[in-house]
Amino acid sequence: MPPVRLAALQTAPEFGAVADNLARIEALLAGARADLLVLPELATTGYCFRDRAEVLALAEPYPEGPALRRLAALSRALDGLLVAGFAERDGTRTYNAAAVFDRGEPRGCYRKVHLFGFERELFEPGDRGFFVVPGRGLRVGPLVCFDWFFPEAARTLALRGADVLAHPSNLVLPGWAQQAMRVRGLENRVFTVTANRFGAEARPPRPALRFTGMSQVTDPGGRALAEAPAQAEALLAVDVDVEEARRKTLPSGNEVFAERRPETYEWATRPAAAVPPGPSGT
Amino acid sequence: MPPVRLAALQTAPEFGAVADNLARIEALLAGARADLLVLPELATTGYCFRDRAEVLALAEPYPEGPALRRLAALSRALDGLLVAGFAERDGTRTYNAAAVFDRGEPRGCYRKVHLFGFERELFEPGDRGFFVVPGRGLRVGPLVCFDWFFPEAARTLALRGADVLAHPSNLVLPGWAQQAMRVRGLENRVFTVTANRFGAEARPPRPALRFTGMSQVTDPGGRALAEAPAQAEALLAVDVDVEEARRKTLPSGNEVFAERRPETYEWATRPAAAVPPGPSGT
Repeated sequence: MPPVRLAALQTAPEFGAVADNLARIEALLAGARADLLVLPELATTGYCFRDRAEVLALAEPYPEGPALRRLAALSRALDGLLVAGFAERDGTRTYNAAAVFDRGEPRGCYRKVHLFGFERELFEPGDRGFFVVPGRGLRVGPLVCFDWFFPEAARTLALRGADVLAHPSNLVLPGWAQQAMRVRGLENRVFTVTANRFGAEARPPRPALRFTGMSQVTDPGGRALAEAPAQAEALLAVDVDVEEARRKTLPSGNEVFAERRPETYEWATRPAAAVPPGPSGT
Repeated sequence: MPPVRLAALQTAPEFGAVADNLARIEALLAGARADLLVLPELATTGYCFRDRAEVLALAEPYPEGPALRRLAALSRALDGLLVAGFAERDGTRTYNAAAVFDRGEPRGCYRKVHLFGFERELFEPGDRGFFVVPGRGLRVGPLVCFDWFFPEAARTLALRGADVLAHPSNLVLPGWAQQAMRVRGLENRVFTVTANRFGAEARPPRPALRFTGMSQVTDPGGRALAEAPAQAEALLAVDVDVEEARRKTLPSGNEVFAERRPETYEWATRPAAAVPPGPSGT
């Protein structure tokens, strides 16, 4: 199978300046080609919404909103899949979402399942779970930012056939997610593409936030194939053999998906009463 | 709650020299005290068994085998819990196991669920799943070595109330498990104690193996509190506040256990036919 090109664009959106943010993305990608390109979380709007009214003023329905139409056109120009974080409006409900387009065509809208911090005041939690989008020789699994924290998110996508985790992000904890995403790639034997933003936002009463950049592309061995600096625009692009993500065999001979032992795994969150007692109770 | 002392002993067992290996462990721990001390995987026997007959010759029943009685006595001298990797014999069956003793008393025998490489020729896979042992103000969750690779193992123990993952190891891939265990600690908000061995074994037809040392104790924030060198004996000991592992709240306010979304998670391994088709099928 010919190599596929995985790419991430690291930007610093200005809050509320949707047209300017889109223009900057388009300028940075002029002439670029990728089978999969990932943009940051909330890449067109910025992050620190003060309330739901601010979200509703900038959110768009998928796939026909005006910013989304420009992102669809961008995917056509890239000749590939685009996964871009945006604020979704569905009636009066809002979601922290990732739009997927394949050469201009809408292929799905992932709604972030695990909302971080004050996002819980602004968005509904994702109500569609996790899904894989095939296209351009790849099977792409979208996640958004804090979903990295929950190993079940990446695992679910990998078990459903994802070759690559597409991870739009607005990360604020230096390095943790980047390290963890290498582990997500390793434990699932998949590629990961984290497109993080950089820069800062200070919109009281929201806390002043500094985003950590360091976007990366990692391989099924947990290695970083490309890494962006912390505070600069960057376009990462790596050509990979996607078959590497379909062989779940370690050098030791272990078949890491076939050798899972789901009958021994706990999945539900137990009520506290069911937790074994500590020594004070023994 | 007063601090509890978590400890790991890093040694280089000599294959088959059970009495010498035990004597070295006892010497290194003379006068030591710990609420939890973890020894490496197969700490009394060494690792590179050629066949099941060699395992049976050195394996012991839990808890009454002679090496296990010495380990029980060691836990009494430490005045705490001891988690030690050993080769278990149960009738004609053998397990790569971790014995748990609390001040001399047997408290459980964990049988490694995920066997690595040629271990699959030597041992039965663990048939008792994962369990938590309370004692000394702690709730201890035993894992053995390659169990680190499967996020469900640590998650299961944390959901069942573990404060600390006790992780006897014979790691051979430099650094991967150590990085991943920090992530296991972070994503589950628990402490981890990885006691790894160092040195090398060359017992044809087994591949020559060099073990990576770098034992560590990590905290619920994913930070290493203590780290051993790669190739030296080391006793790590850290006093911690176990309550840190019982607060599952991030600085962002996220309650990471309560905010899990099990209804969106896949954990059965699907048959290949159910994997979404790649683009060749679209």
